[in-house]
Amino acid sequence: MRVAHELADISGPVILKHFRKVVPVENKAAGGAFDPVTKADRGAEKAIVQALAAKMPNDGVIGEEFGTKAGTSPYQWVIDPIDGTRSFIIGSPLWGTLIGVLRDAKPFFGLMDQPFTGERFWSGDRASYHSVGGGRPQRLKTRPCANLEDAVLASTHPDLFEGDMQIGALNRVKATARLTRYGGDCYNYCLLAAGFIDLVLETNLKPYDIVALIPIIERAGGRVTTWSGGDPASGGDIIACGDARLHEAVLTLINNA
Amino acid sequence: MRVAHELADISGPVILKHFRKVVPVENKAAGGAFDPVTKADRGAEKAIVQALAAKMPNDGVIGEEFGTKAGTSPYQWVIDPIDGTRSFIIGSPLWGTLIGVLRDAKPFFGLMDQPFTGERFWSGDRASYHSVGGGRPQRLKTRPCANLEDAVLASTHPDLFEGDMQIGALNRVKATARLTRYGGDCYNYCLLAAGFIDLVLETNLKPYDIVALIPIIERAGGRVTTWSGGDPASGGDIIACGDARLHEAVLTLINNA
Repeated sequence: MRVAHELADISGPVILKHFRKVVPVENKAAGGAFDPVTKADRGAEKAIVQALAAKMPNDGVIGEEFGTKAGTSPYQWVIDPIDGTRSFIIGSPLWGTLIGVLRDAKPFFGLMDQPFTGERFWSGDRASYHSVGGGRPQRLKTRPCANLEDAVLASTHPDLFEGDMQIGALNRVKATARLTRYGGDCYNYCLLAAGFIDLVLETNLKPYDIVALIPIIERAGGRVTTWSGGDPASGGDIIACGDARLHEAVLTLINNA
Repeated sequence: MRVAHELADISGPVILKHFRKVVPVENKAAGGAFDPVTKADRGAEKAIVQALAAKMPNDGVIGEEFGTKAGTSPYQWVIDPIDGTRSFIIGSPLWGTLIGVLRDAKPFFGLMDQPFTGERFWSGDRASYHSVGGGRPQRLKTRPCANLEDAVLASTHPDLFEGDMQIGALNRVKATARLTRYGGDCYNYCLLAAGFIDLVLETNLKPYDIVALIPIIERAGGRVTTWSGGDPASGGDIIACGDARLHEAVLTLINNA
């Protein structure tokens, strides 16, 4: 998936022009909810979509900002130019560009690019990454962690859990886990693939928030599903674990109040 | 404060040898609390203390790991090799090396070094930073934000707020703030100095968690005190704001239940 790397090479500089700059923050959501969309987000998606139209004219595209373009090939590109816009606007590096590919509607390839630090995580036959500033790709491999008592849990923000079922589930998992860290968005799933986080629990994700990450997690040895154990490719409430035994245990815990 | 930069140049490579490596995590706290101390932490403090003994033999040193060494000059170095050890062990870049200098027991100079991304923030006559991989230093300047309704709040972790008074204060501030992000440790104060975060609220800090950050915040135009408006140099419950008007407003809010 050379093209995915080429797209990230194009989007990175477009985004960095706006990172840690004073930019007007628009309010995308009606009714006052805070959902910042920066020039960076739209500029990067436009650059990616234009490059895709030239490189892969028959493929479909699903983007966060500009919606869906139907294709005639079995491939659909699923793009989130900046996953973690709230981190982006506070100047934190914990955001990333997500470029996923579906083949016949199933996750086939994924890439997460962090152009500020120069890190990139992607799935091939196996999952790989390169660290700050490039260098030789290294293999991504989840770590063994069978028991929640030993697990590091990460989630973007506790207030994204809503209602008794979701809040109860988070609290039960958190009460047993060894350590809980908030913040991170897509970065958490990549650190799970790299073997430093054992469990990511999120709610209400969109397909473009997760499609690119699924092959990275799975080819690093992890498991990712919805909270009911189903296909994660449509988004929703998502659980990812580095160890399938932990995944099983946490599914049981969150579904038995 | 050339010496502080030299110390960070020494500690960075010592720490990076252990970052994103499988390292045994010791449990420093008795009674089961999770307080990881890595080889990186101890190795970096040892390297800094040894270099200080050679470069500044008359100065005192207060370190997180190895305690206090009395000096005969008016200067004391206050060192936290890895502020944000929990971020460090999950592979996140949101940690930093804090090197502070007290003169006659008052904060005089501060430096925060993030060797993985290659960022550094410091106070001189004015506060400065350089971004990923070095380059020309840029000025740090807080942004105007008079009202909590417009403010971005950051704090390391909500569970670090304990008891009705602290939890109530966090909840009142959070309910009004425009956006709240968790995670970050020292990185949050540096992003406040850079004008991307308006308010940092923390509890129960140690002197080595905050001394180095005080001159950076103040010389960037911000204000930092304890929750009762007192001197922050001894740690405790800390509030930092980019705008003095916001600081005043939040102090009133957290002290009036």
